[in-house]
Amino acid sequence: MTIGVVGVGLIGGSIGLACRGNSHRVIGFEPFETKTSIDRGCVDELGSLEEVSKSDIVFLCVPPSQIVEVSREVCRAKLSATVVTDCSSIKGPIVEWLSSAGEGRYVPGHPMAGHEKSGAKFASAWMFRGAKWILTPCDFTESAAIKAVEKVVTEMGATPVRVDAERHDREVAVLSHLPHALAAVLVRLGGKLDSTEASAGSWKDLTRVGGVDPNLWTQILLANRKEVAKVLAEFEADLGQLKAALETSDEAAVQAFFKEAQRAKEGKK
Amino acid sequence: MTIGVVGVGLIGGSIGLACRGNSHRVIGFEPFETKTSIDRGCVDELGSLEEVSKSDIVFLCVPPSQIVEVSREVCRAKLSATVVTDCSSIKGPIVEWLSSAGEGRYVPGHPMAGHEKSGAKFASAWMFRGAKWILTPCDFTESAAIKAVEKVVTEMGATPVRVDAERHDREVAVLSHLPHALAAVLVRLGGKLDSTEASAGSWKDLTRVGGVDPNLWTQILLANRKEVAKVLAEFEADLGQLKAALETSDEAAVQAFFKEAQRAKEGKK
Repeated sequence: MTIGVVGVGLIGGSIGLACRGNSHRVIGFEPFETKTSIDRGCVDELGSLEEVSKSDIVFLCVPPSQIVEVSREVCRAKLSATVVTDCSSIKGPIVEWLSSAGEGRYVPGHPMAGHEKSGAKFASAWMFRGAKWILTPCDFTESAAIKAVEKVVTEMGATPVRVDAERHDREVAVLSHLPHALAAVLVRLGGKLDSTEASAGSWKDLTRVGGVDPNLWTQILLANRKEVAKVLAEFEADLGQLKAALETSDEAAVQAFFKEAQRAKEGKK
Repeated sequence: MTIGVVGVGLIGGSIGLACRGNSHRVIGFEPFETKTSIDRGCVDELGSLEEVSKSDIVFLCVPPSQIVEVSREVCRAKLSATVVTDCSSIKGPIVEWLSSAGEGRYVPGHPMAGHEKSGAKFASAWMFRGAKWILTPCDFTESAAIKAVEKVVTEMGATPVRVDAERHDREVAVLSHLPHALAAVLVRLGGKLDSTEASAGSWKDLTRVGGVDPNLWTQILLANRKEVAKVLAEFEADLGQLKAALETSDEAAVQAFFKEAQRAKEGKK
C-alpha cells in the first residue's frame, strides 16, 4: 500500500518509519525538514502535496492552525479511493469542516502518543506501540474508510478507539492540555529558584513536558480554549478546596482531599 | 559500623538495604512492619528504640508529625559518640527544636528520593543512587558528625549537599509539595471523566504521584503550610496569566507564556 504523510515531523516521521517497517511505501510532503526526513528513513521519497494526496491512505500531521486548510487541499487533489485521516489533537474544528464538506472517506484521528521534543529527528517506529489511537468518525464517514485506517494503525502497534469528537475534546482538555499548562507553570516557578537541588522524581515527572514547543501548544490551547477554560475553572475550584483546608490547618479536610485522589488513582489507569 | 534505622518503611528500609549492602550491621526499630522488614532483608535485626539509639549512626525515618518527639527520645537514649540524622521532608520544625536542644551530633537531612508507593515492601538498595541528599546542619552542628553522615550517604550512591534549612523548605514547597498537590488535583479531575482513553505520556507522568499516602502527605503539607501557601499563591498568579491570555485569545501572550517556560526548562534540570 502507498501511505502519504503530510508533515514529516515527530508524528508524521514516526508514522512513516512504522509504515515502512510494515512494508508500505511511504511518500511524504514536507517543506522544511526535507533532509532529516530522508536521512532518518521516515519516507521512501518526498513529493508534492498533490502527489502525496493520491496515496491509498494519507495521514495529515500538520499543526492545528493549518489542519482545515490542508485537509481541503488534500481532499481536492486526492483520488476517489484515497482515505484521508488527520492527527490533530483537537477534533472540533476538523469535524465542523467535515460536516459541511461531507467527505465520507476522511476519518478524523488522534494518536495518543508524543514526546516533549519535536521534529523528525525524534521520530520513532515504536512511537505508537501500546498507545490508543482515537478516531472520531462522523455519521456519514464510510465504514470501509474507518476500517482501512484502523488496520494501518493496528499494524503500527496502536489500539484504535472510536470516540465522539466532542467527548474527545473535553477529555484531552483534562488529560493532556491541562497537564501541559501545569507543567509549564511549574518550570516557570522553578526557574525563579536559586537552585533545583532539592528536586526528585516528582519534579522530574511533573515537568517533563514543561518546555514543549510554544508555537504548537499555543495553537492547541487556543483551538480547544472553550474546553480548556472549563477545565481550568474546575481545576481552580478543586485546588481551592485544598488551599482552604491548608489555610485553616484542617487536617481532616486535607486528608479527605488526598484520600479521594488516592481512590481516583486506584480506580483509573 | 552499626547503623540504626528508626522506622523501617520505604525510606528506612531502603537505607537498611543499602547499608547492609555496604557491609554495615543494621539494627532497626519498627513497631508495625516487623515481618516485611526482616523478610526483605532491610535489617540484620530489630530492637527496641533504646537499643537502636546506641548505634554509631541513627537514621530517623518517621512521619513529620512524630519527628521531634522521636528525635528527643533517641537523643536521650543515645551514646555520646552516636550521630543522629533524620529524613524528614521539612526541616523547619526539627531545626527549631535542635536550636533549643543544642544537640551537636544531630545532622538534619532529607534524601531527595522516594516512590509513589510506601512501605518496606517497596524498599530498594538502589533508592538513593544518583540522588541528592540534602543536609541542613545548624551552626553548632559538629563538623565530624556532618562528615560521618556524608560518608555513609555517599556510600549509598547519593550526593550530599549542604543547604540552609529555610531555603530547603521554600524550595521543596515548589519542587515537591506543589507537584504532589497538582498531581492529586489532576487525578481527582480525571476520576470524574467517563474514561481516560484519550490519555498519553503527559497524563501518566503528571499523575504518577497523584495517589500518594494521604496520611503522610497531609502531615508534610501541614508541616510546611506557610511555604506551601506562598507557593500556591505564586502558582495561581502565574496560571492566571495563561488563563487571561486564553480567555482573550491573545496568541502572543500564550506564546510568550510557553516561551518563558521553555527557557526555564532549558536552563534548569
